[in-house]
Amino acid sequence: MTIHIINPNSSAHVTAHMAEAIAPIAAMSPVALACHTLSEGPPGIETQAHVDGVVQPLLAFSDTLKDEASAFVVACFSDPGLAAMREAHDVPVLGIAESAYMQAMLMGQRFGILSLGRASIQRHIRYLGALGISDRLAADLPLGLGVLELADEERTLERLSEVGTTLRDRFGADVLITGCAGMAQYRARLENMTGLPVVDPCQAAAAAAIGQVMLSACNNKREKRV
Amino acid sequence: MTIHIINPNSSAHVTAHMAEAIAPIAAMSPVALACHTLSEGPPGIETQAHVDGVVQPLLAFSDTLKDEASAFVVACFSDPGLAAMREAHDVPVLGIAESAYMQAMLMGQRFGILSLGRASIQRHIRYLGALGISDRLAADLPLGLGVLELADEERTLERLSEVGTTLRDRFGADVLITGCAGMAQYRARLENMTGLPVVDPCQAAAAAAIGQVMLSACNNKREKRV
Amino acid sequence: MTIHIINPNSSAHVTAHMAEAIAPIAAMSPVALACHTLSEGPPGIETQAHVDGVVQPLLAFSDTLKDEASAFVVACFSDPGLAAMREAHDVPVLGIAESAYMQAMLMGQRFGILSLGRASIQRHIRYLGALGISDRLAADLPLGLGVLELADEERTLERLSEVGTTLRDRFGADVLITGCAGMAQYRARLENMTGLPVVDPCQAAAAAAIGQVMLSACNNKREKRV
Amino acid sequence: MTIHIINPNSSAHVTAHMAEAIAPIAAMSPVALACHTLSEGPPGIETQAHVDGVVQPLLAFSDTLKDEASAFVVACFSDPGLAAMREAHDVPVLGIAESAYMQAMLMGQRFGILSLGRASIQRHIRYLGALGISDRLAADLPLGLGVLELADEERTLERLSEVGTTLRDRFGADVLITGCAGMAQYRARLENMTGLPVVDPCQAAAAAAIGQVMLSACNNKREKRV
Amino acid sequence: MTIHIINPNSSAHVTAHMAEAIAPIAAMSPVALACHTLSEGPPGIETQAHVDGVVQPLLAFSDTLKDEASAFVVACFSDPGLAAMREAHDVPVLGIAESAYMQAMLMGQRFGILSLGRASIQRHIRYLGALGISDRLAADLPLGLGVLELADEERTLERLSEVGTTLRDRFGADVLITGCAGMAQYRARLENMTGLPVVDPCQAAAAAAIGQVMLSACNNKREKRV
Amino acid sequence: MTIHIINPNSSAHVTAHMAEAIAPIAAMSPVALACHTLSEGPPGIETQAHVDGVVQPLLAFSDTLKDEASAFVVACFSDPGLAAMREAHDVPVLGIAESAYMQAMLMGQRFGILSLGRASIQRHIRYLGALGISDRLAADLPLGLGVLELADEERTLERLSEVGTTLRDRFGADVLITGCAGMAQYRARLENMTGLPVVDPCQAAAAAAIGQVMLSACNNKREKRV
Repeated sequence: MTIHIINPNSSAHVTAHMAEAIAPIAAMSPVALACHTLSEGPPGIETQAHVDGVVQPLLAFSDTLKDEASAFVVACFSDPGLAAMREAHDVPVLGIAESAYMQAMLMGQRFGILSLGRASIQRHIRYLGALGISDRLAADLPLGLGVLELADEERTLERLSEVGTTLRDRFGADVLITGCAGMAQYRARLENMTGLPVVDPCQAAAAAAIGQVMLSACNNKREKRV
Repeated sequence: MTIHIINPNSSAHVTAHMAEAIAPIAAMSPVALACHTLSEGPPGIETQAHVDGVVQPLLAFSDTLKDEASAFVVACFSDPGLAAMREAHDVPVLGIAESAYMQAMLMGQRFGILSLGRASIQRHIRYLGALGISDRLAADLPLGLGVLELADEERTLERLSEVGTTLRDRFGADVLITGCAGMAQYRARLENMTGLPVVDPCQAAAAAAIGQVMLSACNNKREKRV
Repeated sequence: MTIHIINPNSSAHVTAHMAEAIAPIAAMSPVALACHTLSEGPPGIETQAHVDGVVQPLLAFSDTLKDEASAFVVACFSDPGLAAMREAHDVPVLGIAESAYMQAMLMGQRFGILSLGRASIQRHIRYLGALGISDRLAADLPLGLGVLELADEERTLERLSEVGTTLRDRFGADVLITGCAGMAQYRARLENMTGLPVVDPCQAAAAAAIGQVMLSACNNKREKRV
Repeated sequence: MTIHIINPNSSAHVTAHMAEAIAPIAAMSPVALACHTLSEGPPGIETQAHVDGVVQPLLAFSDTLKDEASAFVVACFSDPGLAAMREAHDVPVLGIAESAYMQAMLMGQRFGILSLGRASIQRHIRYLGALGISDRLAADLPLGLGVLELADEERTLERLSEVGTTLRDRFGADVLITGCAGMAQYRARLENMTGLPVVDPCQAAAAAAIGQVMLSACNNKREKRV
Repeated sequence: MTIHIINPNSSAHVTAHMAEAIAPIAAMSPVALACHTLSEGPPGIETQAHVDGVVQPLLAFSDTLKDEASAFVVACFSDPGLAAMREAHDVPVLGIAESAYMQAMLMGQRFGILSLGRASIQRHIRYLGALGISDRLAADLPLGLGVLELADEERTLERLSEVGTTLRDRFGADVLITGCAGMAQYRARLENMTGLPVVDPCQAAAAAAIGQVMLSACNNKREKRV
Repeated sequence: MTIHIINPNSSAHVTAHMAEAIAPIAAMSPVALACHTLSEGPPGIETQAHVDGVVQPLLAFSDTLKDEASAFVVACFSDPGLAAMREAHDVPVLGIAESAYMQAMLMGQRFGILSLGRASIQRHIRYLGALGISDRLAADLPLGLGVLELADEERTLERLSEVGTTLRDRFGADVLITGCAGMAQYRARLENMTGLPVVDPCQAAAAAAIGQVMLSACNNKREKRV
């Protein structure tokens, strides 16, 4: 049995970064982890139409993996289709945003989110409200970077430092979340730049998924939704 | 390295039940789990004085385990000394109540808590507020049972059924939490009686602790508090 | 120009009931209202997969109406695709659930929701959280009726009376919302049975849409999203 | 039948500005809109004593209009006497602040309020709490302008630009509300300066009132308070 | 100097009951307490129009007492004119509802309110929201009694027992508040019937006012509003 | 009978400052106030271990004062052992932080906290959540001063002015709280520098305790916890 981590965008290099980010976790894991690229997805998930548009392909693709799946991870910070995936599958399904929030709540009192652009912040705020954890948010600020600009290390680190410091000093964040699936390579450096723990959503979700699989071992019906 | 699960009360049979409850998890875990009884603790933790009274012994005992610890779990549903333990240790520290809440939030929208007595509910409500997740609570109702009465299976199952059904039907709970460390033996039956998933706090915390250890593998400084 | 009200399920008789429900409003309206059935939709929207599955057809269908649209209304109580519709269109887009909540907030302090089944309540609770108005909810209770059973007047009225009275007397609701697009024919009777004002989501959204069109007249760029 | 919009301060020029602001709405409306000045009111409503002091005259004046009224609008951003007006009248009664908040909630996730002075902000915060929508507020900041200074276009635009930009960039507002009845003439320019939609409370309330009248057509008893 | 407690209704016997209720406090107080009846008030404050209608007379009457006042208490559970009174006076002004809530928050985690009729509950809920303490409310239930019916001891005690027990057992209240100025004579018996502490609003406000006067002694400018 | 104010740290000079701060209150009080130093406490309470570590000594010491106590005040801004003290004693027990928050809520709509260091802010945020009053917090900012540095008047006043002004202007605080037991000597000057009322926690708690004692006079069983 395997934990299937599905990147709902079609960019294989993003999936490759995820695999690299979770390698230390996979190395320890008693259950296999496999990263997949959703070929039907857009190159990047930037709009609400993208978010809603990948749900059906996600359901279809995950259905093909169903028989050998011990858990699924939806690896996009908008957690597209999470509720539908949970409805469709008996095994645990995790979203990287929800997992990152839960992880941050274990590591500090108020988390700060570093989002790529302003557009996604509205979605995050709505989602935090839906999760009933808005009070744990210090602030969610835009880096003002496009997905492609993340390749520019110098510029990215400069913005991460600026925004991370603002989240810490002006908004009182004591833990940070990189609000995007493809920023694991910057996590350690952001921790060093700010002195705060930084949560990478993919790593948080991979670890959480392993925990869910172990809990399922206590009772296979445990994850059954009502 | 080992995940040390410390039962802060001095009742070895409670610790034995915990070990039994987490056995399926331990069997899969890449890291060893060890359950301990805090000999300085009271037979059961029922009052605020008990909660506060075990903090110092917990800190002292955990200090003796420090060098071989990859994580700690405080195994009492009042999460005594959790903040102090996190302050004292660089490795992850989990509380079974916080872990149960996080687990329940992954399994439903509003959780119901089955507490032993009325006295602990005030504490739970304060704690949920401190965690900023009060909106996820459906209700917290007392079973009206003492720790010893949990040995009376018939009476306990009757009350679990009554209270669990009330939480589901009157308060809209879609997931249940047994608000006590020693009720794992009733979990599956409570699920069958109510048709709702039921979270056992010790199992939830053990699984979460393994996830935290794996995350630490991504970055040993990760858990460092600011 | 026209306000296009789209029923995202494929049941024409439901659309016919909507048209009937809003007839008094259409009769007064300075702008035409047209009700449409989304032929690609399922007969009824009951699962999360249904909710997510209608978004793309909704976007496609609304796109064909775009040039002559002064506003859109998504006429399903789960407000499927509302964010994506707003992203796609420059004209106002209303959801019947959001509109019903806003209307209820003008008519009482705490609204009660009468939902068909238990399954949709989780969605409603998440949505109220996303809207930041959870404190205005008295309770959301299931009628335990399927869409087809709504045709059974006697049974439906009996359950509406039971649940409406419970929302008023046990949970303190001072206004009620029928949590489904097809119950307008029961609104007046539910008001008489409970003595509380009752909001029909389709009527609330139609009226709100007319208001939005008039506001747009003050400034055509007004509805432009950022 | 007529929608009566009552400016509770005695400054006829403010009433004239309101009439101008809602002219595009009135031009489309199937029901007449009439703006009135409350002669017993103070020149401007700036203190809590002013707010409370206009309630009785408002009730008395609205009573004289009762027989030909299809709805009332209280046109002061403190919504003076709104609850008493609703208690007194069977027809819909709207306040421009409540209407502006509802409108802003349809146009963005978090609204920013531009208030004239610091003194009114305490009132706004209390009111948002009473409405249960505090989570939708980004921030409420003072322009530091008196009512008379609004006549100084240059100074006013400069402050609107500064405060509007701060609300957008530092506090994450994605929609703005001018927290005063007499600023409609600046709305379009504030939208251009900030790129955010801006809600004028009088326009929002006028449009909402028309919607309420149309809903009343579905059921004359609809607005009856319990 | 004197603490002036003003009953904003015109029923002298209610004022007499207040004086009796606070007698044990007055006997210990270093500063004199005087109870007054607002002759311009209605016999009882039951509607929103009553609430708003007493503000001007309250301000006028309190102004005549100003020179010898060390504090004011507005002795109606709707706290009419509290904000205006605080704006008008430099000395501390207390409302009996706000004081009762604060007192209850010191005595339990979630308070239950026993209101006379359904009508006032909407007001209480709005007020708790304005105070930002809604999370501390267990529930607010109507006794279904008019002010005059409070003279019927048997009937009143029966309802107090029913509602108090419901607040405790169904809604988890651990402290109760009698939501009316004239019920002090029932407080001790309600405590005995429910086993919960019961807050009488007038007693709570009188004690709080004495505390405020003592704080003022530390700094006469202390209470100055900004 | 006496109100015993216990400074849980072992620094007698801090206790001396407290006694000085409450002298004007003690001078008016009908009941004696006595300040005590907890010799078993640390010189200052700066860590969570300190907070938890003083609970047992506090309980033991307060037990020796029990027979002549009319109330207790725990005089540390972390309110260590407050719940345990209330459980242990039948007389009122107040914490200076809770009392300061309640006092600030009477003096403004949103309070700002001036904390010594960043470390204590996490604790304050958790506590405000537990009290259910997070919405009343404007912000909690660190002065960046150690307890000893408070002796440096020039430096302290400079930071108080900077932070107090930021709380007022950027975060909209309309009342301030000095988040430490030993800053009463700066209160008046901070009020003058900011124009905002400033709450000293020890003064607030002393005044509140006197009020509680007077309330107890109405009913000796009043403070009995359930």
